[in-house]
Amino acid sequence: MPQHRFTQRRRVAFAETDLAGIMHFSNFFRWMEDTEHAFYRSLGLSVHPMGHNTGATDTQTGWPRFKAGADYRQPLLFEEEAEIELLVAEMRSKAIRYIFRFWKNPDDTHRILAAIGELVVVAVSAAPGTRIMKSSPIPDAFRARIEPAPAEALALPGAPPPAAS
Amino acid sequence: MPQHRFTQRRRVAFAETDLAGIMHFSNFFRWMEDTEHAFYRSLGLSVHPMGHNTGATDTQTGWPRFKAGADYRQPLLFEEEAEIELLVAEMRSKAIRYIFRFWKNPDDTHRILAAIGELVVVAVSAAPGTRIMKSSPIPDAFRARIEPAPAEALALPGAPPPAAS
Amino acid sequence: MPQHRFTQRRRVAFAETDLAGIMHFSNFFRWMEDTEHAFYRSLGLSVHPMGHNTGATDTQTGWPRFKAGADYRQPLLFEEEAEIELLVAEMRSKAIRYIFRFWKNPDDTHRILAAIGELVVVAVSAAPGTRIMKSSPIPDAFRARIEPAPAEALALPGAPPPAAS
Amino acid sequence: MPQHRFTQRRRVAFAETDLAGIMHFSNFFRWMEDTEHAFYRSLGLSVHPMGHNTGATDTQTGWPRFKAGADYRQPLLFEEEAEIELLVAEMRSKAIRYIFRFWKNPDDTHRILAAIGELVVVAVSAAPGTRIMKSSPIPDAFRARIEPAPAEALALPGAPPPAAS
Repeated sequence: MPQHRFTQRRRVAFAETDLAGIMHFSNFFRWMEDTEHAFYRSLGLSVHPMGHNTGATDTQTGWPRFKAGADYRQPLLFEEEAEIELLVAEMRSKAIRYIFRFWKNPDDTHRILAAIGELVVVAVSAAPGTRIMKSSPIPDAFRARIEPAPAEALALPGAPPPAAS
Repeated sequence: MPQHRFTQRRRVAFAETDLAGIMHFSNFFRWMEDTEHAFYRSLGLSVHPMGHNTGATDTQTGWPRFKAGADYRQPLLFEEEAEIELLVAEMRSKAIRYIFRFWKNPDDTHRILAAIGELVVVAVSAAPGTRIMKSSPIPDAFRARIEPAPAEALALPGAPPPAAS
Repeated sequence: MPQHRFTQRRRVAFAETDLAGIMHFSNFFRWMEDTEHAFYRSLGLSVHPMGHNTGATDTQTGWPRFKAGADYRQPLLFEEEAEIELLVAEMRSKAIRYIFRFWKNPDDTHRILAAIGELVVVAVSAAPGTRIMKSSPIPDAFRARIEPAPAEALALPGAPPPAAS
Repeated sequence: MPQHRFTQRRRVAFAETDLAGIMHFSNFFRWMEDTEHAFYRSLGLSVHPMGHNTGATDTQTGWPRFKAGADYRQPLLFEEEAEIELLVAEMRSKAIRYIFRFWKNPDDTHRILAAIGELVVVAVSAAPGTRIMKSSPIPDAFRARIEPAPAEALALPGAPPPAAS
């Protein structure tokens, strides 16, 4: 059954903080991508099935980022554990748009929204015999297992859609 | 005289690439912030004048990021030197909105736009005697030296405003 | 009961790879530190108990790194899950020396040693009324819960001590 | 004429600091590698001549790190400009050993040694028709332009060889 939502938890590492004492804003983007990849793994998929540069790239799909955005509301602190919630906002012919919510105190009834993020990722593949990557249809294996989230999932109370979209 | 534009060049380091062989998308955000800070230094300013945690934080202004976004068009490759162009898009009472353009082949007559970015940064300071940071007016030293770019600077041919804004 | 060994698993993130298609060598140091901090958490300790810059630093101990080293044997690949094994090699009066082993295929009978690491961390604290950090005795809470590993634990077959030591 | 020494300056970026308010110890390793690559560029060389994964990897040499180490003496602070000094400590048949010195206040008569580092990098190349990388002789272009530093250069007063070596 196709999926449109995935969550994982992650704890802020010392190397992810900056001298303001909080997680550096660029690391939210790394957490988004990491959650996207964990979502794929949960579906038996990978952005890089071989896990290594095997030379067999002619037949591979790459997933460059087309757009990335974040709105920051509350900082994440060192050693704080947050929940990252991924939602599939759109399935286009050659791209997927994700939104992300970063939750502080994820086990509380009053969890707090630390940040909202967005990634638009595009499927690309190389023309046969070349190494020039062009946008291409989302591979069937991905399309079969990923679906857009229903509107009500995207419009959770207290979590407006990212202003960046 | 207040400034609204700043550029610097930077070369993609090996540690900034990923297994796709290009600069990881999160590092564009680090380059934006670094260019913002170089812009301040060019004006005799710093986001952290002491360069260290001195305890004198009550009188300091912090500059957390409120919003960050990027549209990616062309990858930056290992050892490629790009130009990062900062433009002041807006001066609000407590926030500054910057846009950034990343130029490949910056010395060519046909330089190529690799990415467009956006940062909204907010001035915060601690209430006297506390360490709770609240948004606060942009310090005079910053306001005196930074001005919004004129519309024509923001609307350069071939460089549309970021879709994220 | 004091502890001298701790393990955790971690999967290589895309942002941790480089264009050679493997985990960038600098990230092994981040994994070491992260494992050290997870070790402290497992003992009810933290290098930064407040989790934030609270101003109450006069009474805090910091843990700067005095020495760091790694010997690399096998690369870690994207999405590969490795086990990081921490061993307390030495408890000195003001410093702790750790060694780390990075294991590929940790569930196999023939797990493979990807790398060996070493960190020497020093306890520092500020003199009363100042912010100048000086080396200081390891806090009692740490000394009570951490002990040096026995020689046979440090000399596991197939895992010679790091050449760096 | 072969070279054995190279220097470059670099300023600590906000994203390179941690909540202790200083450059994170792992970033010294990124600065070492970046200086190594700038050294190669100064000689007309590159660890990745194409600047991108072009598929022509069968004939390429890779330069994985075999060993890395650092001794830390003084922290580097946000926006501080330091000089990184590279010295070729050894040219072996298939490996180069570098040492690095990180200098605070590089223009002062009393510059301060912030850290000493070491990298041992190994030349590897793929056997014809395969993608399995094996250690291989240092390419002639590198050997012709790089030489070991004389003993007196390695034994500068105030800069003992790294304890890690």
